[in-house]
Amino acid sequence: MSSTIWSVDDHLEDILSAIRPLDPIELQLPDAQGCVLVEDVTVPVALPPFDNSSMDGYAVRVADVAGASEEFPAVLTVIGDVAAGSDGLPTVGPGQAARIMTGAPLPPGAQAVVPVEWTDGGSGGGPAGSMRPAGQAPEDASGEVRVHRPAEERAHVRARGSDVQAGDLALAAGTVLGPPQIGLLAAIGRGTVRVRPRPRVVVLSTGSELVQPGEKLAEGQIYDSNSFALAAAARDAGAISFRVGAVTDDAETLRSTIEDQLIRADLLVTTGGVSVGAYDVVKEALASVGDEDEPGSGIDFRRLAMQPGKPQGFGSIGPEHTPLLALPGNPVSSYVSFELFVRPAIRALMGLPDVHRPTARAVLAADKALTSPDGKRQFLRGAYDPGAGRVAPVGGAGSHLVAALAHADCLIVVPETTTSVEPGADVDVVLLG
Amino acid sequence: MSSTIWSVDDHLEDILSAIRPLDPIELQLPDAQGCVLVEDVTVPVALPPFDNSSMDGYAVRVADVAGASEEFPAVLTVIGDVAAGSDGLPTVGPGQAARIMTGAPLPPGAQAVVPVEWTDGGSGGGPAGSMRPAGQAPEDASGEVRVHRPAEERAHVRARGSDVQAGDLALAAGTVLGPPQIGLLAAIGRGTVRVRPRPRVVVLSTGSELVQPGEKLAEGQIYDSNSFALAAAARDAGAISFRVGAVTDDAETLRSTIEDQLIRADLLVTTGGVSVGAYDVVKEALASVGDEDEPGSGIDFRRLAMQPGKPQGFGSIGPEHTPLLALPGNPVSSYVSFELFVRPAIRALMGLPDVHRPTARAVLAADKALTSPDGKRQFLRGAYDPGAGRVAPVGGAGSHLVAALAHADCLIVVPETTTSVEPGADVDVVLLG
Repeated sequence: MSSTIWSVDDHLEDILSAIRPLDPIELQLPDAQGCVLVEDVTVPVALPPFDNSSMDGYAVRVADVAGASEEFPAVLTVIGDVAAGSDGLPTVGPGQAARIMTGAPLPPGAQAVVPVEWTDGGSGGGPAGSMRPAGQAPEDASGEVRVHRPAEERAHVRARGSDVQAGDLALAAGTVLGPPQIGLLAAIGRGTVRVRPRPRVVVLSTGSELVQPGEKLAEGQIYDSNSFALAAAARDAGAISFRVGAVTDDAETLRSTIEDQLIRADLLVTTGGVSVGAYDVVKEALASVGDEDEPGSGIDFRRLAMQPGKPQGFGSIGPEHTPLLALPGNPVSSYVSFELFVRPAIRALMGLPDVHRPTARAVLAADKALTSPDGKRQFLRGAYDPGAGRVAPVGGAGSHLVAALAHADCLIVVPETTTSVEPGADVDVVLLG
Repeated sequence: MSSTIWSVDDHLEDILSAIRPLDPIELQLPDAQGCVLVEDVTVPVALPPFDNSSMDGYAVRVADVAGASEEFPAVLTVIGDVAAGSDGLPTVGPGQAARIMTGAPLPPGAQAVVPVEWTDGGSGGGPAGSMRPAGQAPEDASGEVRVHRPAEERAHVRARGSDVQAGDLALAAGTVLGPPQIGLLAAIGRGTVRVRPRPRVVVLSTGSELVQPGEKLAEGQIYDSNSFALAAAARDAGAISFRVGAVTDDAETLRSTIEDQLIRADLLVTTGGVSVGAYDVVKEALASVGDEDEPGSGIDFRRLAMQPGKPQGFGSIGPEHTPLLALPGNPVSSYVSFELFVRPAIRALMGLPDVHRPTARAVLAADKALTSPDGKRQFLRGAYDPGAGRVAPVGGAGSHLVAALAHADCLIVVPETTTSVEPGADVDVVLLG
């Protein structure tokens, strides 16, 4: 461990400067959800690809319905149906109409669409509310229809290319693919798309005292919670997470476990074993894994000017130089460290434009002043009220207060140079969303 | 189709009053992420379960280190190591110390912990920075240690139960399980937890004109985008979604496809075929599926006072009365309908306390007034700037403008009684997040 004390910002910058976005791959549309597009996608064919009807009604020639009214309807011969997806379009001649459905191509000869509600629907009676199903009343596709209103040219016609034109930029590289973007890509016919994949994050906790939840505790043992919380947090950040669970405090076991996991890891996260104790297995196992001939390889263990979360490790491991973040073992320390360092790393691997949680300024609502050690950036758990712009501390500063963490929705940040924050003062909060 | 025009609010209320949260099941912790807890979880054993050290250092008796300084250190006999997870604790007698690691149980006889930095670490030299790994330097667990500072009783000791006490409420029924809540449940030993599961949502689009993206378009055909966009949106809302894809406009095919899917559906969503045309297959296939003896069974097709999204169907189908929402087929209509009706239904099935998207008031930033039909609630696509509190329309009002939808991040709401909104006026926006 170097004797330098790192600032939070320097440690984060060191991590982000070393992380490269994952290489893009071609994915099926549904698998690309939440991923970042790496290509400019242009429109291959205009949308809509043909002039089509925006209503259920009749495709007509404008001159045939000029001056039509309910009293003096235009009487047209129905020459057939044009349904969406139908091919072999009929040509609408003078005095004729084709029954047409929403989205169906405007047939040749027709100049406008009159909605079915502007007609008698072929019933010979008053204005129609709807059409009868074609399967049950095939006779409605022939006979006569009375049109009660005139229509302007192109009325109720959606023009070819009115949504997008061939050659238009549909989505730019860097776009995050949410449901509407997936919809647009499908609409222009893209079955696959080139994106950065979700990173595979392997989470393992270390500690001979750790027991799997659901098992029975012996004396001196506690339950492993870090691997569960951080695997969930990694998934929440957009990763595919693999929870290895607790590894005993034995350097050889840890090294071989990590080597085993490298095959499925784009990022490794460990908890525990990074401090100054005689059983700090992560430090012992990984402090010497670097290849001396390979700049940047190996894991560097550091002290950070922060609370909680002082001891941290970062570097890369294995033949692919897989990044590894070694977090402290206290549950609150490891969770805060995850939020500050691992989440941005995951989002950088995804190529996301913004890797950080949103922050806000809020008024401290507390009974007494918050105290913070000089020279350290402190992260306290808080409950944020966005309406009132206020934040209240939840639980104390102790790094083992996992119950308080579960009732917080933000981190209150007390800067390095501040040792006391009075109630009513403004503070920065990191919103955990 | 009934002739009544339904308001947006009445249709939504009708849906939400019919949807019951899914029955809870016991899930492994990782599978419960994002789900709603249905039990009050109490703490079975105190956290931490035993007094333990918050530092790497030496467990000592207070009297033995009283008045210690670097010049006049207290010299203690090291009787062994207490590592986290070790059993068979040594008893610390007068003049003795046990080397202790963070998280390890305070051994009997010891009253406080002095951090390793307050000692010579057994080196016989100056203040120590850290301990040597136990495996490499086993001799450090014996011999003598010089302590340079006194310690108060309980110094650097985390008391049993200081986080939570046995019997405390850890999490209340209704809590949504995010990473910190998963961590707390693991920490108190819960391997499984009782939650409402994620709903399984089956999405199918209808239309003989629809072609799978990646295939070639023939004349009059378009690509199926709704099933892709809505399956993604359902997943985004918290559901497990199944995309069936496009079904041709044939009532018998549609009925049998839906019957096939019922086995894996907690909710069915269809698009298209709900309007007044002669080929509106969803309406034709489902208008008569209800059991007359069974109140509330069957699908009701309605006209809503909204734009886009006027024609809608809602009801239940099959032996389990699986809820079904039949949305219109235009991509923007179906997406807006999903946001307004299906997303709340999914979240109600999950038992989430808040089923709605967040909304905001914003100033309309536009070149000209927005116009809206009288008596209809209009939903326009917008780009919201939260910093400036402004929203700008994106694209036009046409319901086929799927490209504009992909560049929007909110819906601008124009109320039923408003026919024009001037630039600079306040509007409600639904944030699509």
